[in-house]
Amino acid sequence: MKKEARILGIDDASFDKHKDKEVLVIGTMYRGGDFMDGLVSCWVTKDGNDSTEKISEMINKSKFKPQLQLIMLDGIAVGGFNVVDLKELSIKTGLPVINVIRNYPDYKKIFSALKKIGQEEKIKLIEKAGEVHKVNDIYVQLTGISLEDAKEFLRISCVRGNYPEPIRIAHLIGSGIIAGESHGRA
Amino acid sequence: MKKEARILGIDDASFDKHKDKEVLVIGTMYRGGDFMDGLVSCWVTKDGNDSTEKISEMINKSKFKPQLQLIMLDGIAVGGFNVVDLKELSIKTGLPVINVIRNYPDYKKIFSALKKIGQEEKIKLIEKAGEVHKVNDIYVQLTGISLEDAKEFLRISCVRGNYPEPIRIAHLIGSGIIAGESHGRA
Repeated sequence: MKKEARILGIDDASFDKHKDKEVLVIGTMYRGGDFMDGLVSCWVTKDGNDSTEKISEMINKSKFKPQLQLIMLDGIAVGGFNVVDLKELSIKTGLPVINVIRNYPDYKKIFSALKKIGQEEKIKLIEKAGEVHKVNDIYVQLTGISLEDAKEFLRISCVRGNYPEPIRIAHLIGSGIIAGESHGRA
Repeated sequence: MKKEARILGIDDASFDKHKDKEVLVIGTMYRGGDFMDGLVSCWVTKDGNDSTEKISEMINKSKFKPQLQLIMLDGIAVGGFNVVDLKELSIKTGLPVINVIRNYPDYKKIFSALKKIGQEEKIKLIEKAGEVHKVNDIYVQLTGISLEDAKEFLRISCVRGNYPEPIRIAHLIGSGIIAGESHGRA
């Protein structure tokens, strides 16, 4: 695998839980973890069902698509509970997907929240997202890629600290654009 | 000067000349040309007079301000003809300003356009922005900084090619957020 493997890092932007109906999703196009070649974006419905479709479209129509080798998600849901179907995203784009998780998910809490808002069907999407693997200090779920190859992509893209640069930057952009200034995570 | 000198790279986002009244302005907070620490943003009026004030405010209220050593602009105007008063920006923020120009400006054309829209007063702002220096393949105008120091900041921040990374990335973000996909320049 080349040090300059093309990786798309996806995260959602900040949003107002009470006011916003649509949430911005950012994709940073990286060569490994060093060089940002471009940026794509789309809008998804807050707590909606369109993230898989919208993100697939965003990727498939991009001029960067022919070079792209991997999709990295910063968590399985965007815009609140708009849960991405990782397998479907991989099939629609023809690309492997790594879902990166900073802290091990509290599934009990998530499932309870989904039941509360009457969206139990998303529990299945989360359950079928696959085994959670620990790699160094983070967790990953893999679709269309072996753990060995995923580790290699993480090695290439984690140029500073233990978080992949493409999603670190997607997060900074998403919070800085909407809130006026970027912020870290909990 | 340190390789990790903190530089803010400012560019405006794409906008629709006919429809949009407000235009997004992006500031990328860089350590030299390598590492993006954060992002700030604000909105200015298309062809308006508020860019100097809005950009100063955006910088002064940022948590990154205490470390910041330099402001780099990607052209003197944002949001169409919202011309930045470089001296005023430098005074309001207490920071040196480098205005980076990719192609030598066609002042005749710009001044004629400003007269056409009844904004002759901005010609003065452009005229007082100072001498245009050629540095390698680009041009710069300097406020509160010597040509020698400016060259050093350019050397540190032009990590790839001849354009400073903080404004290259601010441009990519600004076009990718609004248009859905980033694009190059003319």
